[in-house]
Amino acid sequence: MKLWTADVAPNPRRVAIFLAEKGIEIPTVMVDLSQRENQAPDFVAKNPLARVPLLEFGDGSCLAESMAICRYFEETNPEPPLFGVDARGRATVEMWNRRMESEILARTTGCFRHCHPYWQGRIEQVAAYGELCRRQAEDSMVWLDGELAGRDHIAGADFTIADITAVCGFDIGRVAKIRIPESLANLTRWYQSVSARPSVAASGPPRK
Amino acid sequence: MKLWTADVAPNPRRVAIFLAEKGIEIPTVMVDLSQRENQAPDFVAKNPLARVPLLEFGDGSCLAESMAICRYFEETNPEPPLFGVDARGRATVEMWNRRMESEILARTTGCFRHCHPYWQGRIEQVAAYGELCRRQAEDSMVWLDGELAGRDHIAGADFTIADITAVCGFDIGRVAKIRIPESLANLTRWYQSVSARPSVAASGPPRK
Repeated sequence: MKLWTADVAPNPRRVAIFLAEKGIEIPTVMVDLSQRENQAPDFVAKNPLARVPLLEFGDGSCLAESMAICRYFEETNPEPPLFGVDARGRATVEMWNRRMESEILARTTGCFRHCHPYWQGRIEQVAAYGELCRRQAEDSMVWLDGELAGRDHIAGADFTIADITAVCGFDIGRVAKIRIPESLANLTRWYQSVSARPSVAASGPPRK
Repeated sequence: MKLWTADVAPNPRRVAIFLAEKGIEIPTVMVDLSQRENQAPDFVAKNPLARVPLLEFGDGSCLAESMAICRYFEETNPEPPLFGVDARGRATVEMWNRRMESEILARTTGCFRHCHPYWQGRIEQVAAYGELCRRQAEDSMVWLDGELAGRDHIAGADFTIADITAVCGFDIGRVAKIRIPESLANLTRWYQSVSARPSVAASGPPRK
């Protein structure tokens, strides 16, 4: 088994943090996205969508999609649980992970992809959409700050995949100059706490 | 327990098809999105993101997000399994459901939201982004047609949540005039087969 992955990008990072929290170590192959190694024929043969992360099993079969990879390891290495416990708890974590994807990660990534010079010439950018994403991400932060008033983590008392998704979303947002305002005290407290975890501090875009 | 939901919109429809396939019947409250009933204070108190579907439990607590609701019922009513069986199988279904969300549903919905007159004055539309989504959806159809060459359903032999996500994605795409070309024979066969299921035929936008 080996993991094809990359630095910095939020989806590979979600898996990296997840594995670190689980204490799982597997051989890793770094794919240099800036050199478009993900578009090389050998890699596209493994994942026709040309994306990392990708988990390759010993028999050569491959599993793509960050959340599919994380869920696979949640089943095979259940401790500590990062997708919740019992049916209601797991559904609650799924709700919050989905909310962090749609309200934070998709918006900060949308801003980064459609506004940042890194993507010029790599994708078709629509700057007006990127700016809309920026404003929506800023609105979402205000909402999330209120939600965090009474609790330590996104989905409740425990650190879960929803925290991983959110911190990866906020950190790619920083590259696009989306910052959590200090006035959002609950969100700031959460961000500082989660960012200090070794699994989170070990990865991600350079802190600026 | 009751389900707050709506007609036509793809996420409420995903849950409706899922419940029908499971044979689960629960009391339903229809929320008229065209009249913005989802933004009424009583509803926003249940879901601050003002979205349907929303599952309200007997104790008044609420679960939002389509996939969280479906996963809850997958655990409480496991037959027939719609999220796969065993760890590898479930991971494969998750991979395909995620791919159908990112490659089909997000793109057809993006086109619908950013190009269709229904959304004028309701959201900030960026037409250039909607047209980009349209072209990306068309590209995805070509890829998906190839994937379906050797199998009956999106994730393999069995009908799963990935088929539900895909058909809801294609049907909202039809509202934005995104059609599966007849030249894509595998995708056309799959679409006709899945659309004929009673659970699917009972819901969705008017067929035009």
